[in-house]
Amino acid sequence: MNATSQHTDRTSRPPGSLSRILPALALALTASAWNGAASAQGEAARTVPSRILPVPDSVSPALQKLIGQPPSLPPAIPKTPEEWKALVNRPPPPDFAQRFAEFCDKFGVAVAPQVFGGVRCYVVTPRVVKAGNRGRLLVGLHHGGWVGAAGESGLTEAVVIAGLIGYKVIAVDYRLLPDHPFPAAMDDAMAVWREVSKLARPENIGVFGSSVGGSMVLSLVQRAKREGLPLPGAVMSGSPWSDLSKTGDSYYTNDGVDGDLAYDGFWEAVAKLYADGRDLKDPLVSPVYGDFHGFPPTYLVTGTRDLLLSCTVRVQQRLLQAGVPTELEVEEGQSHMSYLVAATMDAPEGAELYSHIARFFDERLGR
Amino acid sequence: MNATSQHTDRTSRPPGSLSRILPALALALTASAWNGAASAQGEAARTVPSRILPVPDSVSPALQKLIGQPPSLPPAIPKTPEEWKALVNRPPPPDFAQRFAEFCDKFGVAVAPQVFGGVRCYVVTPRVVKAGNRGRLLVGLHHGGWVGAAGESGLTEAVVIAGLIGYKVIAVDYRLLPDHPFPAAMDDAMAVWREVSKLARPENIGVFGSSVGGSMVLSLVQRAKREGLPLPGAVMSGSPWSDLSKTGDSYYTNDGVDGDLAYDGFWEAVAKLYADGRDLKDPLVSPVYGDFHGFPPTYLVTGTRDLLLSCTVRVQQRLLQAGVPTELEVEEGQSHMSYLVAATMDAPEGAELYSHIARFFDERLGR
Repeated sequence: MNATSQHTDRTSRPPGSLSRILPALALALTASAWNGAASAQGEAARTVPSRILPVPDSVSPALQKLIGQPPSLPPAIPKTPEEWKALVNRPPPPDFAQRFAEFCDKFGVAVAPQVFGGVRCYVVTPRVVKAGNRGRLLVGLHHGGWVGAAGESGLTEAVVIAGLIGYKVIAVDYRLLPDHPFPAAMDDAMAVWREVSKLARPENIGVFGSSVGGSMVLSLVQRAKREGLPLPGAVMSGSPWSDLSKTGDSYYTNDGVDGDLAYDGFWEAVAKLYADGRDLKDPLVSPVYGDFHGFPPTYLVTGTRDLLLSCTVRVQQRLLQAGVPTELEVEEGQSHMSYLVAATMDAPEGAELYSHIARFFDERLGR
Repeated sequence: MNATSQHTDRTSRPPGSLSRILPALALALTASAWNGAASAQGEAARTVPSRILPVPDSVSPALQKLIGQPPSLPPAIPKTPEEWKALVNRPPPPDFAQRFAEFCDKFGVAVAPQVFGGVRCYVVTPRVVKAGNRGRLLVGLHHGGWVGAAGESGLTEAVVIAGLIGYKVIAVDYRLLPDHPFPAAMDDAMAVWREVSKLARPENIGVFGSSVGGSMVLSLVQRAKREGLPLPGAVMSGSPWSDLSKTGDSYYTNDGVDGDLAYDGFWEAVAKLYADGRDLKDPLVSPVYGDFHGFPPTYLVTGTRDLLLSCTVRVQQRLLQAGVPTELEVEEGQSHMSYLVAATMDAPEGAELYSHIARFFDERLGR
């Protein structure tokens, strides 16, 4: 299976003289029009000069503050398993407990640990579960690249979603690297799904996650299909790391543009550690190469600066090819997962996105 | 009205200490986590170094050929009205008629000129109007930046859509620059709409267009609402030039990345010529600043490299804010309007997009 295997089932005619001419009809003003330069050259890489990216004035002042932050740098690549462990298990800031309590209070949720399917989870319950959502549940798979966001620090999106859209959320505290490469995290997610999908009608349950959580949402559906388990009623996959290999246009176009994520170095090392010897294009670790037929309705989110813009839109293409009802929202000016940070910072774009997610789950989940 | 006016009706709390802390919860591994660097700095422009963009291997070989073409250069900016006229009226290549006939034959359509509402149009009829589409019509507004694609050379998308999805299309040959700045092209489009919306039930009629055509689609709906005219049943707006001012993130992030479009220089001059003294953010010439309430279902298309990615996703945000059923499709690796070129070149991604447009109009238009 390779990156273009998705196209093998399509009829493809070799470009003839007509094909070489017609771009001119389309673009009318391009320099290459009618002169055949295109077909003669073909498939060349291109150099983009250095340039300055201003903070866009097409977003709210609060989001401008976030976009204007200096880019964050990834940690140095750990050299030993012990160094990986030290990174993954680094202690939270001393005032974490107080800040987390304030965060939960701000979003009006209560958090309680509970085991499902033998896996540690948190039940995040809003003060008010909205009428109509009482027979419904959401399962959350957190971000953090399998090397962070353990325990309560992985509950950001679960708290935001529970609080903003009024659902009870079961958030999975799945196992992390370096001790637990693939398939440990997915095994945990599946064990939870196996049990939770008996607690309510599966079509009443939504699954959500962002970044590796977004990728795990896709893998959960693919694996549930393979294992003959019921499927959730709808899923939200935010900026999914759907391709662990450096395949996809935005790994290059948004390199250095995304303020929070770059592939070369740290995250490439994480990808290899997680894949544990598997090809990075193995559909089990890179679900964009998996099967999307029969998926429940899917909401995808990304941003114009997201390094994983292509990881997201390639999933859209596969879903559309499979005839799955799909909604894609692209956030102006936002880097990887900025929408979640925006929601925590009271940038209006954050709450707005989650209001769309609320509408989506409300329309698509059973009751 | 300015670029951020869309946010004025939202509640915005000043960022407190909690807001400065919580991004750390979200990103967990960023360098700025927990150290407050963000709020201290704020709103800084950022330099992106020069880099090489490979042709993505996540698209079909045929599309790779298109993406690998050398970037097209815009013409020099004409210095006088006569030079503008010479550019706009430059003769087609000597074999245009034959090539155009082959093009129509390839897509299985017949083309006939016909006047609607006093405006020159072409009726593009497929050999087979699909069952179910016989009481339906599409109106097409072509690309070309108001300085190109006059006459039959502006029919590319109309021919592709009529042929691939089996609808009769009325394509408007609206007036162009430099003699006819705003509102001439829109006056022509509205005159056609006024007449055509009486030929079939308006809810059975779709309107489509790309680039300036995509922008005119949005303006047509906004103006029809203002003038109390019926609205189309559904619209497709491809990579709309919805903001003639250089506002929006992708004007910068995709500058030099888009192989077919750049703003500074030629297209900025076109924007000013078209606006004819109006502010480039006037909602009459930049519909992203207009009102989107009551829009019919809307299909938006853009690409990861599209200079107008932000012009497209900002329209999505406005439509979602207005509660309009909206679908956005983002094409992997594609520059401005590459999807149409792809369709003419037999890159499978092109036909695939138009099959989605077919499904969209089929679901959304009346019969």
